[in-house]
Amino acid sequence: MKTRAAIAFEPNKPLVIEEVDLEGPKAGEVLVEIMATGICHTDAYTLEGKDSEGIFPSILGHEGAGVVREVGAGVTSVEPGDHVIPLYTPECRTCKTCLSQKSNLCTSIRATQGKGLMPDGTSRFSFKGQTLHHYMGCSTFSNFTVMPEIAVAKIRKDAPFDKACYIGCGVTTGVGAVIWTAGVEPGSNVVVFGLGGIGLNVIQAAALVGADKIVGVDINPAKREIAEKFGMTDFVNAAEIGASNVVDKLVELTGGGADYSFDCTGNTDVMRQALECCHRGWGTSVVIGVAEAGKEISTRPFQLVTGRVWKGSAFGGARGRTDTPKIVDWYMDKKINIDDLITHTMPLEKINDAFDLMHEGKSIRSVVVF
Amino acid sequence: MKTRAAIAFEPNKPLVIEEVDLEGPKAGEVLVEIMATGICHTDAYTLEGKDSEGIFPSILGHEGAGVVREVGAGVTSVEPGDHVIPLYTPECRTCKTCLSQKSNLCTSIRATQGKGLMPDGTSRFSFKGQTLHHYMGCSTFSNFTVMPEIAVAKIRKDAPFDKACYIGCGVTTGVGAVIWTAGVEPGSNVVVFGLGGIGLNVIQAAALVGADKIVGVDINPAKREIAEKFGMTDFVNAAEIGASNVVDKLVELTGGGADYSFDCTGNTDVMRQALECCHRGWGTSVVIGVAEAGKEISTRPFQLVTGRVWKGSAFGGARGRTDTPKIVDWYMDKKINIDDLITHTMPLEKINDAFDLMHEGKSIRSVVVF
Repeated sequence: MKTRAAIAFEPNKPLVIEEVDLEGPKAGEVLVEIMATGICHTDAYTLEGKDSEGIFPSILGHEGAGVVREVGAGVTSVEPGDHVIPLYTPECRTCKTCLSQKSNLCTSIRATQGKGLMPDGTSRFSFKGQTLHHYMGCSTFSNFTVMPEIAVAKIRKDAPFDKACYIGCGVTTGVGAVIWTAGVEPGSNVVVFGLGGIGLNVIQAAALVGADKIVGVDINPAKREIAEKFGMTDFVNAAEIGASNVVDKLVELTGGGADYSFDCTGNTDVMRQALECCHRGWGTSVVIGVAEAGKEISTRPFQLVTGRVWKGSAFGGARGRTDTPKIVDWYMDKKINIDDLITHTMPLEKINDAFDLMHEGKSIRSVVVF
Repeated sequence: MKTRAAIAFEPNKPLVIEEVDLEGPKAGEVLVEIMATGICHTDAYTLEGKDSEGIFPSILGHEGAGVVREVGAGVTSVEPGDHVIPLYTPECRTCKTCLSQKSNLCTSIRATQGKGLMPDGTSRFSFKGQTLHHYMGCSTFSNFTVMPEIAVAKIRKDAPFDKACYIGCGVTTGVGAVIWTAGVEPGSNVVVFGLGGIGLNVIQAAALVGADKIVGVDINPAKREIAEKFGMTDFVNAAEIGASNVVDKLVELTGGGADYSFDCTGNTDVMRQALECCHRGWGTSVVIGVAEAGKEISTRPFQLVTGRVWKGSAFGGARGRTDTPKIVDWYMDKKINIDDLITHTMPLEKINDAFDLMHEGKSIRSVVVF
C-alpha cells in the first residue's frame, strides 16, 4: 500500500513528506493507522545526527496513537478497529526481563529494533525502491505503520488521539518514573530538576500520589507558572542562587533532603546535584534525562554508603501493554492533565515547524494530527 | 574507677596500654565490661591519621562484646549481667531516621559521637587528668567502657564473646548488606569484589539466603580456598584477566549480569566494575567498602537509565538493637561461620601485633580477649 510519511533522508536536513510504500503486516504484526503523533526531543536528537546508532534514511516518530486496520497471522490480542498506542518498549511477557517482574525493558525484539528493522530482519517501508528504516520500532511520522503485536497497547476508544499520543512517550516517562520506578509515597518530599515536558509530568504524578513538597528547579523562571499549575509547591531558580548552592538550598527547603529526586535535564552535573540533595539514609534519585554521549556522572561513594540510592528510569518503568492503558484512564478521569502540555497542533506537512519550535524553546509538546 | 585500656595518643604511634580513669554511667548510660574486641581496618585507618575527623588522644575499638555491670538512672532495656554488643550505629527508635523505617542510620547521638564525646558533651575517660576521647561511641580497646543505653544490643548469654564481638562490625556489615540492604532472593546471581573479611561475610550470607552463583573477584588467588569454603561458586582473578575484561567476564559467567554485586574493596574503579557487571533492567550494586578521601565513583548515566541501581550499605543496613541479636542466633545455630574468620586471638598487651598482622595481610580478623 501507499502511505503519506515524513522521511528523514539524512541528518540535519528537514524531513521530506512523500507517499511511501508500506508492506502489510506479516505473522504477529499489525497495521496501524496513526491518527496523531507527538514530536519528541529524541526524534530531534536522532535527526541532528547525535545518536551514534541513528540510521538513515528512516521514518522517525515514536509517540503516536491510532487504530488497528489489519492484523497478520496469529495475532490474537488486538483486532481491526482497536485503538492503540505504539510502544517503542514492547512487552512480550515471555522474555527473561518480562518474567523477572523487575523491569519493563523487554528484550524480545531489541536486536532488530536497534537496526531499524522488524523482528524478521526486514523493513516494511520503501520509497522508489529504496529501503526506509523503521525508528524505535514505531515510525509514527507515517499515516500508516506496521508494528509487532507485542508492541501495541490497546486503549479505550473514547480517548482523543491528539492527547493520547503523548502517553506513547513523554507522559509515561514522567508519570511512570514517579509511580513505577521510584514508588513515591504520600507525604514524600520530591525535587524535580528541569521543568520541561518530562519535569511537568513528574510534578503532576507526584501531586497525584500525594507528595507533600514538590520542589521544581530550573534556570528559567518563566517555567514557574505552569509548573505551579501542575502541582509544584516551591521553585528554586538555579541560575539565581548559583549551582554550588543548589544542594544546600534544597536540603534546607525539604527539611533534611529529598525523599525522591528526578533529573529531567540530561545534564550530568545536575544529575549529581539531584543525588546529593537527597535525604541521608533513604533518599532516592532517579535519572530520566538522556545525557550527551561520553558524559559521565560522578559522586563520592560516601553519598551511597550513607543511604542515598541512584537509579534510572526508561519509559517510566511502565510495562507498555499493561500500564500505558492505565495512564489513558487517568487522563480520561482528569487525574492527569495532558491538554495544557500540548501547545501546538499541526498537519504532517508542517512537521518541520515542530522541530523549530522545540529548538527555540517555544513549545512543550507539538502534535501532528493526520 | 580504673580500667586497663589501649590509648591512641597520636597518629602513627603504637597504642599504649595503661590504667585509665573511667567515670561511671550517667542517666541513660550503662557501664560495660568488654570481654573481647576485634581489631578492624577502620581502627587502623584512624590510627594512621587517614580519617580527617579522627581525634587524639582517644581509646579506639568499636567491635566488642561484653557484660553490663552497672546502669545509670532511667535505664530500662538492659540490666547488670546482660550480655551486650556495643553499637557504633545506635538505634533510638524515636528519631526521624529510625521512624522512617527505611534506614538504620540513627541520628540521635551523631553530633556528639562524631566529636568523641558522650551525648552530654563530655568524655568518661581520662588519663592523669587529661581527657581521652571516645571512639565511634564505643572505645572497646578498654576493659570497661560506658555506652548510651540505645547503643547496646542485648544478646544471648551462651554466645562466646571472642566470636560475638565480630558481629559488632565486620560480620554484620557483610551479612547485613546481603540481607537488609540488598534483599538478595533465593536463586540470585551474586558477584562479590574483594575476598577479605567483609567479602567472606557477604559470600556466606548469599549462600545462606539461597543464591545460585556466588562469584568472587580478587587479585589474590590465595583467597580462593577459604572463599569456596564460605560458599563461593566461581572465582575470577582480576589480576590475571586484566581490569578491562572483568565486566565482560562477569556478565558472561552470570548469564547476562549480576542480580546483585557488592564492592568490599574501597577502590572506586572496582566500584564502577561492580555496577557495570550488573544485569540490565534490575541489577543492584551495593558499595560497602570505604574509599580514600577525595576519590569519586563515576559511570555513564546510561547504566542507570537501563535499570541498574547503585546504592550503599553501612553496618549492613542492620538496626543495631533489633538485628544484631538475630545474627548472634544465626551464629549459634551454625547458619553462619565466624570461627574460621577469627585467625588470631591475643591479650590486650599484644594489640599492636594485631595491627601489624593486618598490614601484612596475614590475618582475617584478630581479636583481643581481656
